[in-house]
Amino acid sequence: MSEKQQKLLKELYEYNREATVLSSCGAVLNWDERTYMPRGGAENRANMISLISGMVHEKQTSPRIGEIINELLIGGIDAEEDSVDAANVRELKRDYELSIKIPKSLIEELSKTITLAQGRWQEARAKSDFPAFLPWLEKVVKLKQQVAEALGYEGKPYNAMLDIYEPGATTDEIIETFERLRDELVGLLEKIKSTGKEPDTSIITRDFPVELQKKFGVKASQAIGFNYDGGRLDETAHPFCIGFGPGDTRITTRYNKNHFPGAFFGILHESGHGIYNQGLLAEHYGTPCGESISLGIHESQSRMWENMVGRSKPFWKYFFPKAQKTFPDALCNVSLDQFYFAINDVRPSLIRIESDEATYNLHILLRFEIESAFFNGDLNLKDVPFIWNENFEKYFGIKPPDDARGCLQDVHWSAGFIGYFPTYTLGNLYAAQFFAHADKEVGGLHAQFEMGDFKPLFDWLRKNIHIHGRRYRAQELVKKVTGQPLSHKPLIDYMTKKFGELYGF
Amino acid sequence: MSEKQQKLLKELYEYNREATVLSSCGAVLNWDERTYMPRGGAENRANMISLISGMVHEKQTSPRIGEIINELLIGGIDAEEDSVDAANVRELKRDYELSIKIPKSLIEELSKTITLAQGRWQEARAKSDFPAFLPWLEKVVKLKQQVAEALGYEGKPYNAMLDIYEPGATTDEIIETFERLRDELVGLLEKIKSTGKEPDTSIITRDFPVELQKKFGVKASQAIGFNYDGGRLDETAHPFCIGFGPGDTRITTRYNKNHFPGAFFGILHESGHGIYNQGLLAEHYGTPCGESISLGIHESQSRMWENMVGRSKPFWKYFFPKAQKTFPDALCNVSLDQFYFAINDVRPSLIRIESDEATYNLHILLRFEIESAFFNGDLNLKDVPFIWNENFEKYFGIKPPDDARGCLQDVHWSAGFIGYFPTYTLGNLYAAQFFAHADKEVGGLHAQFEMGDFKPLFDWLRKNIHIHGRRYRAQELVKKVTGQPLSHKPLIDYMTKKFGELYGF
Repeated sequence: MSEKQQKLLKELYEYNREATVLSSCGAVLNWDERTYMPRGGAENRANMISLISGMVHEKQTSPRIGEIINELLIGGIDAEEDSVDAANVRELKRDYELSIKIPKSLIEELSKTITLAQGRWQEARAKSDFPAFLPWLEKVVKLKQQVAEALGYEGKPYNAMLDIYEPGATTDEIIETFERLRDELVGLLEKIKSTGKEPDTSIITRDFPVELQKKFGVKASQAIGFNYDGGRLDETAHPFCIGFGPGDTRITTRYNKNHFPGAFFGILHESGHGIYNQGLLAEHYGTPCGESISLGIHESQSRMWENMVGRSKPFWKYFFPKAQKTFPDALCNVSLDQFYFAINDVRPSLIRIESDEATYNLHILLRFEIESAFFNGDLNLKDVPFIWNENFEKYFGIKPPDDARGCLQDVHWSAGFIGYFPTYTLGNLYAAQFFAHADKEVGGLHAQFEMGDFKPLFDWLRKNIHIHGRRYRAQELVKKVTGQPLSHKPLIDYMTKKFGELYGF
Repeated sequence: MSEKQQKLLKELYEYNREATVLSSCGAVLNWDERTYMPRGGAENRANMISLISGMVHEKQTSPRIGEIINELLIGGIDAEEDSVDAANVRELKRDYELSIKIPKSLIEELSKTITLAQGRWQEARAKSDFPAFLPWLEKVVKLKQQVAEALGYEGKPYNAMLDIYEPGATTDEIIETFERLRDELVGLLEKIKSTGKEPDTSIITRDFPVELQKKFGVKASQAIGFNYDGGRLDETAHPFCIGFGPGDTRITTRYNKNHFPGAFFGILHESGHGIYNQGLLAEHYGTPCGESISLGIHESQSRMWENMVGRSKPFWKYFFPKAQKTFPDALCNVSLDQFYFAINDVRPSLIRIESDEATYNLHILLRFEIESAFFNGDLNLKDVPFIWNENFEKYFGIKPPDDARGCLQDVHWSAGFIGYFPTYTLGNLYAAQFFAHADKEVGGLHAQFEMGDFKPLFDWLRKNIHIHGRRYRAQELVKKVTGQPLSHKPLIDYMTKKFGELYGF
C-alpha cells in the first residue's frame, strides 16, 4: 500500500474509532437507563443519549469520510478483496451511504411518527382495535417506503429494509428457504400434535428461589464460556445484551420464582450474544472488522447456546444432577427425561414471545410474508388482520380470537422495524447450519456436552465466526464456513431428530 | 436587556449546556467504573472517559466563549449584580479563565507526573520511606507552583490553589479562623482526656447483618430527605456521591458486618451531598446557578447530616428503638445513652480518615499549615516529616511512630490536590454556622428530630443554600444567610456543648 493510502486509511480509522468510542459511551448510558436509573433521571437521560447520538451521527456523516473512501477506492484499496483493510473500507462505505442517503427531514419526521405510532399501537392493542391503529401503520409504512426509495434497492422495495438489518440479504434469496421451512414446520407440527403426547410442565413451574436461579444461571453461562471478568449479569424487565467495547459486555435477565425456564434459557440466550461480543477482536475495535456482522448472525449465536445446546439432552445429562442439588424441593422426584420433555414442550400458541423452539419460526414466517407483501404494495394494510388470521389457522391450526392476540401483538411495525422479523429465523437457520458443520469438524459435540465440556464448540465459533467481525457478509460467511449456501435442511433435520425422539415418530 | 445581549446570553448558555450534558455523560461512565464495571473494561473505559473529558474541555475553552463573555460585559451584564444572569456570566468567566490560563503542555506534564507520583507514594507509604517519595513530591509541588503562576493570585501563591476548590477563599481570611479553632480544639481535647471517661465501643462492633444495615440506612437517608425517585444507593470500596444532572444522584457506601457506624454514617454523609445535589434547580441545569458552590459548601451539607444530625442525641431518641428492633441481637441490652456515647467516642488517633468528629479538624489544620507553608516557600519539603511529627504531638499529645502513619498517609499531595484539605474543615465550620442559624430561624430543630421530623431543616437548607447554586460565593452566602462572616465560634460552641454533656465538664 502506498504511503498516501496508508495515511488516508489511518485518518479514516481515527474518525471511526472516535465514533465507536462515543457509541460505547452511549451504550453505557443506555444500559444504565434500562437497569439502574431512578425514574427521575429519564428526561435528562434522553437529552444525554440524544446529544451523544447526534455527535456520533455527525462524525459518521462527515463529508471527509466520503472523500477518503473515494480516494482509497481510486487507489485500489479493494483490489485485495479478502484483506481486512479492504473489508473495512467496503463496510465503512456501506455505513456512510446508509447514513447520508436518508434526508434529515425524513429522519426527523419518521422519528416523531414512530414515537406517536407506538403510543397509538399500545392503546389499540389494549382495546384490540386494529382500525384505530391502521392510519398510524399507514403513516409509518409510507415513511419507511420513502426511506427505501432514498436508500435505493434492486428488485423489490422490501429488500432495502432487509438490507438494513441483514446486510446483503435479499427477499429473493431467502424466500425459497423460508417457504420450504414453513411447509416442513407445518408438517412437523401436525406430526407432533397427532402423537397426543404432552409433557408435565408443572415440574418447571414449582418454587425455584430467585437467588438460587441466579447462582445456577451464572454457573451455566460460565460453563458455556461467558467471561465475567469482561462482563456482568443484571436484572431488567426486558432482557438484553449490550457491549461497551473490549472487555465489557453486559447481559440481563428477569427472574420468576415460579418459572424456571424463563430466566435460565434467557441467560443462556443473552450469554450467546455476549460470547459473540466478547469474541470480537479488541485490536479491531473502532473498525467494522471489530463489529458483529448482522442481527441474524448475532441471533444465531444466542439461539445456538439457548436451544441447540441449552435445550439438548446431553446438556442436561451434565446439568440436571446439579439442578436437583440446587433445587431439591422442586426437582428431587423428577427424572431427567421428565425434565427434558418439560423444557421442550411444543404446542401451537398465539403469542410469538411465549412460543417454543419448533413453532417460533412459523410465527416469524407469517410476519415476514405479511410485511414483505404490504411493503411491496401487494397487500392493502387494512387487510392485514384478515390475512393474519387466515394464515395463522393454516399454519398453527388455531384461530386468533382477537387482533390483540393476533396482528397487534408486536411492537415492531409501530416502531418502524420492518425487515427485522426475518432476522430471527435467519438466526435459527444459521445456527443449525453452523452447529451441524461444527459437529462434523470438531466431532462428538453431544458427547462433550455430557461431560460439561463446551470449549470445543466455543473455540470453533470463536475461530470461524466471532473473530472475523464484519470481514465477510453473512451469506458469504455461511458459505465459507459450512461450504454450502444457507439452507432450511439443517434446521429441519435437527428438529425432526430432536422432536421425533421426544414425541416418538 | 437588549435583544443583542439576550442572543449572546442564549448562545453562551447553549455552549455551556452541551458541555454540562457531556459532563453528566462522563459522570455516568465514572459511576459505572467505580460500582459495576468488570475489570476487563478498565482500559477502554479510560479511553471513553478521556474522549468525553477532551470534548468537554474543547467546548469549555472555545475562544467563542471568551468573546461572548467580553461582549456581555461591555454591554453591562454585570450591572445588576444580584441577577441570575450576572452571576452566571461571572462564574462562566471564572471557569473560562481557569481553563485557558494553564498551558496545555503544563497540564500534560502535570497529568503524567501525578500518575507516576501516586505510584511512588503508594510504594513509599508501604515502606514508610519519605525520602523515596520526596523527589516526586518536589516535582508535583513545582508543577503546581507553575500552575499558580499561570492562574495568577493576590498575596501568596497558595491562594491560587485554595481558589480552585473554594472559589474566592484566601489564606489570609481563613487563617485566623483556623488558628482560633485549633487552639480551642486542643483545649477541648485536653478536657476530654482529663475526664478519663471512655465509652464501651464493643457494642457497635457486634454482628450487624449487611442486608439489615442496608435497609436501616436507606430508611434513615429517606427520613432526612434523600429522594430515591431521583437517586440510588450502591456499594463501593471508596464511597462517594455523584450527580448526573436533574433527577439522578447516586450515592454509595461500604458495609462491614462488624462495624455499624461505618456504613450508617457513611450513608448519612453521602445523603447530605446527595440532598444538596437534588436541591439544585433543574431549570438552571447547564449554567453555574445549577451547580454546587464549592467543595466546602458541599462538605457542610454532608457533615451536617452525618454529625450534627446523625450523631445527635435527639436523632437517636427517634431512631434507636428502631435500631434495636432491626438489630435485636446486637442492641437489645444496650441503652440509648451507651449507644450515643459509643458513636461519639473521642480519642486522638494517627489516621485522619479514622478520626472522630472532634479530632478530625485538628488533622486538617495540621495539613493546612504544612501545605500552605511549603507551597509558599516557607518550609523546605524535606522538613515535612519533622514538622508533621512535632505539630502532631503538640496538637494530639501523641507522636506518629513512622511516616506511613504520619505525613505519608494521604494520597492528596501525590495527586496534586494542594489546597483541598482546608475545604473539609471549612465544611465543618459552615455546617455549624448554618445549623445554629437554622435552629434560631426554624426553632427547636432537636425537638423535631426527636419526632423523626427532619423536614424543617431540610426545607431551610433548600431555601437558603441548595437552590442558589453558584449564585453567591461561599463567603458571601454565609454572610447573607447567617448575617455573620465565617467564624470558629459556632463549631466550638456546638462541640463544647455536645462533648461537655457527654464527658461531663
